[in-house]
Amino acid sequence: MIDNFKIEKIIVEALKEDKDTYDITSEWLFSDDVLSSANLIAKEDGVLAGIDIFEYVFKLIDGSITLEKFVPDGDKILKGQLIATLKGSTKHLLYGERTALNILQRMSGIATMTAACVKEVSHTNVRIVDTRKTAPGLRILDKMAVRVGGGFNHRFNLSDGVLIKDNHIKACGSIAEAIKQTRLYAPHTLKIEIEVEHISDFIEAMNARADIVMLDNMSLEDMRECVRLNNGNCILEASGNMTLDRLRRVAETGVDVISIGSLTHSVKALDISLRFD
Amino acid sequence: MIDNFKIEKIIVEALKEDKDTYDITSEWLFSDDVLSSANLIAKEDGVLAGIDIFEYVFKLIDGSITLEKFVPDGDKILKGQLIATLKGSTKHLLYGERTALNILQRMSGIATMTAACVKEVSHTNVRIVDTRKTAPGLRILDKMAVRVGGGFNHRFNLSDGVLIKDNHIKACGSIAEAIKQTRLYAPHTLKIEIEVEHISDFIEAMNARADIVMLDNMSLEDMRECVRLNNGNCILEASGNMTLDRLRRVAETGVDVISIGSLTHSVKALDISLRFD
Amino acid sequence: MIDNFKIEKIIVEALKEDKDTYDITSEWLFSDDVLSSANLIAKEDGVLAGIDIFEYVFKLIDGSITLEKFVPDGDKILKGQLIATLKGSTKHLLYGERTALNILQRMSGIATMTAACVKEVSHTNVRIVDTRKTAPGLRILDKMAVRVGGGFNHRFNLSDGVLIKDNHIKACGSIAEAIKQTRLYAPHTLKIEIEVEHISDFIEAMNARADIVMLDNMSLEDMRECVRLNNGNCILEASGNMTLDRLRRVAETGVDVISIGSLTHSVKALDISLRFD
Amino acid sequence: MIDNFKIEKIIVEALKEDKDTYDITSEWLFSDDVLSSANLIAKEDGVLAGIDIFEYVFKLIDGSITLEKFVPDGDKILKGQLIATLKGSTKHLLYGERTALNILQRMSGIATMTAACVKEVSHTNVRIVDTRKTAPGLRILDKMAVRVGGGFNHRFNLSDGVLIKDNHIKACGSIAEAIKQTRLYAPHTLKIEIEVEHISDFIEAMNARADIVMLDNMSLEDMRECVRLNNGNCILEASGNMTLDRLRRVAETGVDVISIGSLTHSVKALDISLRFD
Amino acid sequence: MIDNFKIEKIIVEALKEDKDTYDITSEWLFSDDVLSSANLIAKEDGVLAGIDIFEYVFKLIDGSITLEKFVPDGDKILKGQLIATLKGSTKHLLYGERTALNILQRMSGIATMTAACVKEVSHTNVRIVDTRKTAPGLRILDKMAVRVGGGFNHRFNLSDGVLIKDNHIKACGSIAEAIKQTRLYAPHTLKIEIEVEHISDFIEAMNARADIVMLDNMSLEDMRECVRLNNGNCILEASGNMTLDRLRRVAETGVDVISIGSLTHSVKALDISLRFD
Amino acid sequence: MIDNFKIEKIIVEALKEDKDTYDITSEWLFSDDVLSSANLIAKEDGVLAGIDIFEYVFKLIDGSITLEKFVPDGDKILKGQLIATLKGSTKHLLYGERTALNILQRMSGIATMTAACVKEVSHTNVRIVDTRKTAPGLRILDKMAVRVGGGFNHRFNLSDGVLIKDNHIKACGSIAEAIKQTRLYAPHTLKIEIEVEHISDFIEAMNARADIVMLDNMSLEDMRECVRLNNGNCILEASGNMTLDRLRRVAETGVDVISIGSLTHSVKALDISLRFD
Repeated sequence: MIDNFKIEKIIVEALKEDKDTYDITSEWLFSDDVLSSANLIAKEDGVLAGIDIFEYVFKLIDGSITLEKFVPDGDKILKGQLIATLKGSTKHLLYGERTALNILQRMSGIATMTAACVKEVSHTNVRIVDTRKTAPGLRILDKMAVRVGGGFNHRFNLSDGVLIKDNHIKACGSIAEAIKQTRLYAPHTLKIEIEVEHISDFIEAMNARADIVMLDNMSLEDMRECVRLNNGNCILEASGNMTLDRLRRVAETGVDVISIGSLTHSVKALDISLRFD
Repeated sequence: MIDNFKIEKIIVEALKEDKDTYDITSEWLFSDDVLSSANLIAKEDGVLAGIDIFEYVFKLIDGSITLEKFVPDGDKILKGQLIATLKGSTKHLLYGERTALNILQRMSGIATMTAACVKEVSHTNVRIVDTRKTAPGLRILDKMAVRVGGGFNHRFNLSDGVLIKDNHIKACGSIAEAIKQTRLYAPHTLKIEIEVEHISDFIEAMNARADIVMLDNMSLEDMRECVRLNNGNCILEASGNMTLDRLRRVAETGVDVISIGSLTHSVKALDISLRFD
Repeated sequence: MIDNFKIEKIIVEALKEDKDTYDITSEWLFSDDVLSSANLIAKEDGVLAGIDIFEYVFKLIDGSITLEKFVPDGDKILKGQLIATLKGSTKHLLYGERTALNILQRMSGIATMTAACVKEVSHTNVRIVDTRKTAPGLRILDKMAVRVGGGFNHRFNLSDGVLIKDNHIKACGSIAEAIKQTRLYAPHTLKIEIEVEHISDFIEAMNARADIVMLDNMSLEDMRECVRLNNGNCILEASGNMTLDRLRRVAETGVDVISIGSLTHSVKALDISLRFD
Repeated sequence: MIDNFKIEKIIVEALKEDKDTYDITSEWLFSDDVLSSANLIAKEDGVLAGIDIFEYVFKLIDGSITLEKFVPDGDKILKGQLIATLKGSTKHLLYGERTALNILQRMSGIATMTAACVKEVSHTNVRIVDTRKTAPGLRILDKMAVRVGGGFNHRFNLSDGVLIKDNHIKACGSIAEAIKQTRLYAPHTLKIEIEVEHISDFIEAMNARADIVMLDNMSLEDMRECVRLNNGNCILEASGNMTLDRLRRVAETGVDVISIGSLTHSVKALDISLRFD
Repeated sequence: MIDNFKIEKIIVEALKEDKDTYDITSEWLFSDDVLSSANLIAKEDGVLAGIDIFEYVFKLIDGSITLEKFVPDGDKILKGQLIATLKGSTKHLLYGERTALNILQRMSGIATMTAACVKEVSHTNVRIVDTRKTAPGLRILDKMAVRVGGGFNHRFNLSDGVLIKDNHIKACGSIAEAIKQTRLYAPHTLKIEIEVEHISDFIEAMNARADIVMLDNMSLEDMRECVRLNNGNCILEASGNMTLDRLRRVAETGVDVISIGSLTHSVKALDISLRFD
Repeated sequence: MIDNFKIEKIIVEALKEDKDTYDITSEWLFSDDVLSSANLIAKEDGVLAGIDIFEYVFKLIDGSITLEKFVPDGDKILKGQLIATLKGSTKHLLYGERTALNILQRMSGIATMTAACVKEVSHTNVRIVDTRKTAPGLRILDKMAVRVGGGFNHRFNLSDGVLIKDNHIKACGSIAEAIKQTRLYAPHTLKIEIEVEHISDFIEAMNARADIVMLDNMSLEDMRECVRLNNGNCILEASGNMTLDRLRRVAETGVDVISIGSLTHSVKALDISLRFD
């Protein structure tokens, strides 16, 4: 169920982008009453994400198009598997095809990679989370796909999370001062997060009672030391250069959260195709 | 120079997406008159694309921010290279940072991969072209990045190019009939393109005087045979599963154009970072 | 069937333009449940265009309004002829009336004039095409009306067609150079068109293998000479001062296409009225 | 001076309509720093309208474009007359050219026809006014052009004027009742106008103290009789089939206002062209 | 029945404002098929306004939500009274709840205060009218609420009413001159209103045949004198510091209209709550 | 400094709302080059909020208007005090006047009431916070005004804060279960807040380790008991019927936060006027 005006706007803009005037190929080949059915089929293994949005693309074009869904979001799909069947006006199916697939393939690509990361750390309590490194304008979908893949969302934007970085700290003189000043004004519903690169900075942040400390580009040993020193005080978030093979070892340091930019900034589309009967 | 209202809208929407109300971290740490300078630095080798749009992100936030540009779009950048220097209000630089980088890294990622493909076929006359498999809402930027990387654009959307596919053909009964009917009505400024999978279909399309024939998922041998039969009549476009290592051999079959969906549907962001002094 | 978000936006903007707050006349005279039926009647002879959009205006206001259509787009209508019958809420019919008629009358006016031009050249193979001289914001409807009238569309905008004009040529030094340079970069799916005013220029353009040559403001004799020299090489498009009575003679010179700005820049609305029972 | 966000939106939408991605002809022929100057020249006699909006089109594209204006809105222009000179980036001048001319030619066409009508009745005190029969989305410009031509505006839309028509009257039972009921609720800042077709109805309207009575499609004799009976009580507005040659005689009946739909629904563009040096 | 695209836009923007991505509380607690019913109950006495818009908020989120309405707009409601019952998806009811209540409470607050003012002057023929002092972007709803409360609307904006103020008068040299010049150009459908502060100015305005004279911040005695002098010539509108207790005496001076800014600029929300069963 | 596209949009929409076509009063009375200066003067005591936005309204209309500011946001203003001086085109000052004042008066009204509440509890550590009971579409300004007045913001919308209410609890079976389930999925950057009405429920929430507990409509004694039991574990937020005179006693119970809906749902505009010289 799509009850989200921001997603609706994304879809409408994408559909306008793909048809400036009319579909000059189909216009003269199909009359309005020609109907088709088409099968949505996985061309490789992965995790499905965005099937409701895929459906909504067609609903926005033509309310009489129907989609029978055989796989829900979050399920694994195997190469060759039938995901859904679409029926309706041929012209309208062809109009929505590319936009709907572009969304579905991107979201499923994100979910698939997220699920792989989640699996890698599943023997721990670590959360895999995303970042703000998303495709411009598509953050809401990119972050939805991360959730579908079993990951969690970091802050959505600059307004709904506090994250004190290097240059914020410089401006205030010290980590302790930056945390103190931020807490003075930030909404009481939010936790204060601060980014550190060294163990000594971590200690200062912990002592200043940061809620979350991001350990940025730290070595495994340093992370382990921070975990030991932390002793459950702050939430510890590891960040920076999180390749799939390093993930397990990072998770095993005992951090609570691992944030991974590549989940959304370097997406490999999952191959899914729409086959007309 | 950005003289494009559609690009401006993309940027504004992305900036709105990244700040719902105010930047709750910087608001209380920086007064409006704190200034910073920051260096834009390549973290890996690649081709730069989108630097004017990167600049425009900041100009839209605050006209007094200045960017000194050391590398133009299309140039190679090396790991560690200084690309540009930004100066202006700290708050405003921090506001634009993520959005500007998200655009620049995606576009440079596309240009870098396109340039690699172009290089692979540079001993031939083949054009590398993109597809409509772009990030929803970002097609104008994705396709600009392909051009920056030395590639060419296929049709932008359903309205500015004729491409007859399988199901169009089924609807008409035959390749020849589909071409004939389309030509009857399509604007005289556009070429008629048709997709075929077999040599026999190619022959029918050529005889029906298609302007462009897309050879979809054909073997190298079949492509070579089409090139021989074609004898310069139609523009031949190879398509389907174009991996970087197969590209050279496809180009050497003698086709004119190779279209590659992954240029834009599976983008690896180029690592570029903004370092505040 | 309207499946076009750009047309929907045009209609919504027009409806907002025509009702800033509420209809201060009807508000106090009609309760919401007063129903009316109304007949759409031709007040002069012509060609109907835009009846689906006329219907869509009312559907966007109130999905329960029904329209029974007796004439499809493209048909001739005679003075006094009943085109359609509308039934629904009196208030809502009155709300949509002016906007719907403004669209229908303009589109039918365009189609009527286009059909007259097409008829004038019907003994030849000449295509009548439009230009970009359309009402700002209404190009999609203006060009649709031209098609309904039996004409064809020239390029929709600066992005989906190449047209090299005088000042482009000056910038490059020569016709041949301008064509060569454009072909180097323009999408392979588009034809290259160039505008010439003299026979010698036409020859240069043909030799440089332009796809389309626009013969701008040429005399009938010069056009005939170009046709002779061309010998089927390029598509020839006559343009400039195409009055209805000169059209036949231009067509008989053997050109392929005649473009007419006045089809859309100087529209005479076709008189059609909505009569409430 | 344009200080109007609705006009700005019209221009931006028109500019977006005319360039979907980039100008594929100019992009490869001109670098950004190529400059041109161009002369705006009347190709036929008329009244200039919209020159500030013409200028604003270019300002919105590129603030560095300059326009030297030799004729203000409302002035007569003669065939061959230089109206203004534009200087700036060649690419940007070419981008704005068509949109700016489409607006200027339409507005000047409206002003020219309006001025002709005004001149026809200039020996009387009659006002020439427009209607809501405008191009969808362009009402604000169409009505501005009428004012420039010396005409006046009728109500802008359904919300800022009361106009009781036939079917309103039917709903209420009588003219007197409709006026009474409307006056009960309509804003006290607005006058009540009612449309009548017969002298007897006019008398009823006058007695019910309508502020304005529209004499719709009446004969000259009937209008004269209404003027005599009215004796200065109501404002009398003549309407329906107002051809240029009938206008003088209508005005001489003594009515106060003549409304003319064709001023805006059947516009003949005034021929004005932009010549690059 | 909501047939107004401007109101629809207000609602959509408000709903987007209240949900940036997803409802992070309900998302994980309710599946999509959990249903609820909820009662809309008055928590204090007042006049109901905006119930159709309240309903429309939910309809825009989810067409399957139903509202059974027990009280129409304009009716008095008593503390504890059941106004309506909502049924539908729990998630969607929770999504719309705050936005719908914010609108309903504001509108009912305006209507309640308006009704109190109207009652205070009900023994006279005075109209209570609003001003342009409304919440930015919400004028259409604020003014609708005034009408629901039994008040009337003054002009909606700068375009649909003439109101000559102090500084306009200074610019022209005199009241008489300002009225004369405005009448020369203003649409014939509008009345000319002028603001005066002294009896002598009133006399000048009346003699210059203003249609409406606003008596701004005058004493009761001065107003009475103006009424006497006016003798029914102009519509007299009292304005400035209209507290509830002074209203009756102002009305009894014999003015026709009293305009009250606080009706919309200082709204006390009417307490209404939505109780889930 | 306004660097916020959402606020810009609010202003533009408000300006469009207040001028549908042109300002029919000023248009004919002032030429474009008539200049004025005007003083912004407090008509009653209060706290100023929104002066930068007030300025931005005029800047958006006409960049050449200047504002000299004598009081910054957050300062007390006294009846008769000069706040700022505006200079520029008379027409443009008059265009922006009403919109700018409507914003400034509302924001200053909110800040003034907030400051009064803050002062009432200034002997404690209590934070005064707002709610989501804001004017639809104006939440960003309403909440900014609360901050200017010395208050703090509660969550901005449903997406950036977790607040478990009665009906959420019912759906889960218990307070403990609702907290547990929410924590499982909610972003790690957010605190979990839950609403309780009874001491026993508070105990359950505290034991389930809620981060924030909202004590809704509790008696002073019950709040005191919760504070005692809480012993610094959770943040305690008092809510419900917070009248100015009860505030002090609530604050003295020892709660951490008091949320007050009336700050934004029942705003009394602060009287500020713009006097033209």
